[in-house]
Amino acid sequence: MAQPLALTSGEPAGIGPDITLAAWLRRRELDLPPFYVLGDRASLAERARTLGLAVEFAEVSAEEASTAFARALPVVATGKAATARPGKPDDSSAAAALASIRQAVADVASGKAGAVVTNPIAKNVLYRAGFRHPGHTEFLAELAARSGRAPQPVMMLWSPALAVVPVTIHVSVREALAQLSTDLIVSTARIVVADMKARFGLAAPRLAIAGLNPHAGEDGTLGMEDVEIIAPAVEILRRDGIAVRGPLPADTMFHAAARKNYDCAICMYHDQALIPIKTVAFEDAVNVTLGLPFIRTSPDHGTAFDIAGSGKANPSSLIAALRLAARMAAARTT
Amino acid sequence: MAQPLALTSGEPAGIGPDITLAAWLRRRELDLPPFYVLGDRASLAERARTLGLAVEFAEVSAEEASTAFARALPVVATGKAATARPGKPDDSSAAAALASIRQAVADVASGKAGAVVTNPIAKNVLYRAGFRHPGHTEFLAELAARSGRAPQPVMMLWSPALAVVPVTIHVSVREALAQLSTDLIVSTARIVVADMKARFGLAAPRLAIAGLNPHAGEDGTLGMEDVEIIAPAVEILRRDGIAVRGPLPADTMFHAAARKNYDCAICMYHDQALIPIKTVAFEDAVNVTLGLPFIRTSPDHGTAFDIAGSGKANPSSLIAALRLAARMAAARTT
Repeated sequence: MAQPLALTSGEPAGIGPDITLAAWLRRRELDLPPFYVLGDRASLAERARTLGLAVEFAEVSAEEASTAFARALPVVATGKAATARPGKPDDSSAAAALASIRQAVADVASGKAGAVVTNPIAKNVLYRAGFRHPGHTEFLAELAARSGRAPQPVMMLWSPALAVVPVTIHVSVREALAQLSTDLIVSTARIVVADMKARFGLAAPRLAIAGLNPHAGEDGTLGMEDVEIIAPAVEILRRDGIAVRGPLPADTMFHAAARKNYDCAICMYHDQALIPIKTVAFEDAVNVTLGLPFIRTSPDHGTAFDIAGSGKANPSSLIAALRLAARMAAARTT
Repeated sequence: MAQPLALTSGEPAGIGPDITLAAWLRRRELDLPPFYVLGDRASLAERARTLGLAVEFAEVSAEEASTAFARALPVVATGKAATARPGKPDDSSAAAALASIRQAVADVASGKAGAVVTNPIAKNVLYRAGFRHPGHTEFLAELAARSGRAPQPVMMLWSPALAVVPVTIHVSVREALAQLSTDLIVSTARIVVADMKARFGLAAPRLAIAGLNPHAGEDGTLGMEDVEIIAPAVEILRRDGIAVRGPLPADTMFHAAARKNYDCAICMYHDQALIPIKTVAFEDAVNVTLGLPFIRTSPDHGTAFDIAGSGKANPSSLIAALRLAARMAAARTT
């Protein structure tokens, strides 16, 4: 039997519990891969009552999760009680969320889980509790480093229609211009290629590298970055033997016919990557972290405090994240 | 009978002649509005022979064009012969292209034409011939100014699924950051609202104003422009009585459900506007110039010298431009 997926509970006051319960209830209909939640059974059961959902729980060890999955939602206890009400994070929130993430990484490192799938956390809640990492992904990279590797995490947004990777991520456009470098593009693209080979089952991933400026700079008349920073990166990647094209005018890269020509688009800044994928795959895009020593996916949305506990949360992106994690775990060669 | 549309011939060596001939041949099937080409009949007839197309030509005055349209492609002579071969602009190209544009503006100003539709020009060819305007649109604005108004031309990309307007246009991302100002956003948005009322038949156009930075700056943590430049513009527009929302996170503005909430998205830079519209409407997006004293549309592509005369040029965008120009001319109230 395949290893189960380790699903973190995320911020207990957010929609993580809602979409987790909704996904498990649809496990047969959608033939979902076995997963277990790392969290607090009492808190999850309370959310099920709030939502009026008939969910069976099984407090189990990770090793028992796959067997339990068909009849009950397997919960592996973290030992941290979560007392927050929907939409109202409290003093238990940060400790519960962080314990869940730490245990998930430990489980995947020890081989109990095939991949980590993370529910949304609230960075502000964690910051108030003394969390010092810029975000979820950096915390995972730090946990991975403790097991002996110091990885460069790379954020991919994946959907069946389009996969994109922004080279610069959660920084202003001005800061993105300052951070952009040939080295950063090359190191990011190499990680993408390595992980698409080792975890997506692609023998020779094809990359499309976006230009930064309109029309990819029009031979330098609309900015020099395309000529001076991006084109040299494309040349280095080509010498690596990678199937790569670019710098391409970003506006004509993302229509249906253009998307057939590559497996992943490498983009220069957040919105250049996120605008097209959220335009074509708003509900089922998955956030995948590449470059870690383990597989990690997550839904591509936040805690949505305003609808937690209301029954309005849409589990589509979590379901897509669970499916992709299982597919990657099955394809994994390293 | 409605006024005909004045269609410029564009760069004679480009695909303008190809798509013009193709559009006229489909006039009945698609119920296209009457248009006439301002150009050189001999050059157009030569292209028809190259393409193996059976096109009748009628050299007419603008006043006779609508009547002639059903049986022949009406050509209004500009007096400038075009001798360029497909893909090979020559010394006749610039003069022919510019004469066609000048005559089209004169015809719409005098009421002979209902709108101007322009075929693609090659800026480099014009520059070599001494043309000193940054582009097509600026030249049209200058011609309009000579008739007594000095307009701010605004570029809209329109499709049935989405309309977008970039506030900064053909400049590098770095230069766009330098140009972006509250005044520029406000003046652009006011022109969009005025023209959508007067030419698109919308009583109360709804605008969505994009943020500049990821997540619209996340309350200033990812760049200050959203707070300091864009939000004040939104407030001024709201005080104008305009139905406006923003600054909105750009990545979640363009999916199908989000698009239902506005009539036009005002974007901060070229690719923020062009990526979503070319992703959802690659073949039939139309370039519309707002803020001019006349209606002007054009196909959203270039001269495509590499396929001119080959039969591969797709007339979809020109056809969409002709249709939209006719619709705008019919809706026009000022």
